[in-house]
Amino acid sequence: MTETAAPHPATYTPTDRTVPTRSKERAAYDHEMVHSILDEGYVCHLGFVRDGSPVVLPTLYGRVGEHLYLHGSTGSRPLRMAGQADPGLPVCVTVTHVDGLVLARSAFHHSINYRSVVVHGVAHQVTDPDEKREALDALVDHVVPGRSYDSRPANAKELAATAVLRLDLAEVSAKLRTGGPNDEPEDLGLPHWTGVLPLHKGYGTPVPAADLAPGIEVPDYLAVL
Amino acid sequence: MTETAAPHPATYTPTDRTVPTRSKERAAYDHEMVHSILDEGYVCHLGFVRDGSPVVLPTLYGRVGEHLYLHGSTGSRPLRMAGQADPGLPVCVTVTHVDGLVLARSAFHHSINYRSVVVHGVAHQVTDPDEKREALDALVDHVVPGRSYDSRPANAKELAATAVLRLDLAEVSAKLRTGGPNDEPEDLGLPHWTGVLPLHKGYGTPVPAADLAPGIEVPDYLAVL
Repeated sequence: MTETAAPHPATYTPTDRTVPTRSKERAAYDHEMVHSILDEGYVCHLGFVRDGSPVVLPTLYGRVGEHLYLHGSTGSRPLRMAGQADPGLPVCVTVTHVDGLVLARSAFHHSINYRSVVVHGVAHQVTDPDEKREALDALVDHVVPGRSYDSRPANAKELAATAVLRLDLAEVSAKLRTGGPNDEPEDLGLPHWTGVLPLHKGYGTPVPAADLAPGIEVPDYLAVL
Repeated sequence: MTETAAPHPATYTPTDRTVPTRSKERAAYDHEMVHSILDEGYVCHLGFVRDGSPVVLPTLYGRVGEHLYLHGSTGSRPLRMAGQADPGLPVCVTVTHVDGLVLARSAFHHSINYRSVVVHGVAHQVTDPDEKREALDALVDHVVPGRSYDSRPANAKELAATAVLRLDLAEVSAKLRTGGPNDEPEDLGLPHWTGVLPLHKGYGTPVPAADLAPGIEVPDYLAVL
């Protein structure tokens, strides 16, 4: 067996927009961290500018390699704007996970533990039918891994009614806070409880649709979530 | 006992920016719904425009009546911009909860159940010291109700280092999806499981800080979360 060198970990190049003005030590640029934060989220917050004002909308998304795909009705505002804009729609897409509530002895040092990814770029409408199908599969599998194989694929009419935006992962940063509170030395003797209350996603019991035929069991891919 | 008429439920007046272009039936404008969605969130997504491009950042917030308060270091970008801008910084603040994954028989009808609030407006820096203190208490109590009474209040130096933005709740809408999948009639016989996987916030066991003095118990207000 020949030994191969570990590949150099891939990173995004920081830019003026992706270097935070403060808490710079919390920023991360490696692909692995960015991908893991993106893949764990269900909803991103899509920001764009309309008539000079900011708009932020929650949106479903999926990732294929270094492309992020967002989708919506062809009638929705940002999708329409991206279709009309040349060379595309400047956007900022942010995904955030809240991992814990950080209770310090002082009000000032209260915080949250979080992981977030911010993507800056120009979103383009996907027009290639194959890429559109792949993006829609990624969107479904992003919500429930494996589900695209266990549902009816979109037909031509549905594909036509769905607009998909592509945003390249190029100008990207992650930011995270972990660990306990950072109290001031002079506060250490105060009588307040201090620590972290962890937060996580909780899944309930699957609720079958009212019209589900008897005998169709809950699929295994839901049980592992 | 005299009977009093139920007060007319207060609502926000819809505007061009708060009426969705599609799924209009999912929009809501009553104060009660909007407040409950805002009060349940830990992080909002703050959108603003910088050099013509959109920026979306996750940010802590609190609500006092019809005011939303966001805070950050006086050195952070949107806080600085709001302090310099006259008459303030145009922002869009969005809070989203994911309540369930909706698995339809067709890929096209996959969706999520969610509740979101979008607030449009102009954010102003809070300069009045009393309002600033009240806002910071609201921010701490938003994360853990009751906590502002069980921590050291901010001192003058900390107050000076913290910038607080106020955004009035005026141009506001909620949007929500509930219920099961909406499959096409011709898909009802397909063999795929269909229904909703509920999602909720899960709290872990409180983790005391490494330097917590022995004998300080986990407070009751954490146990009720």
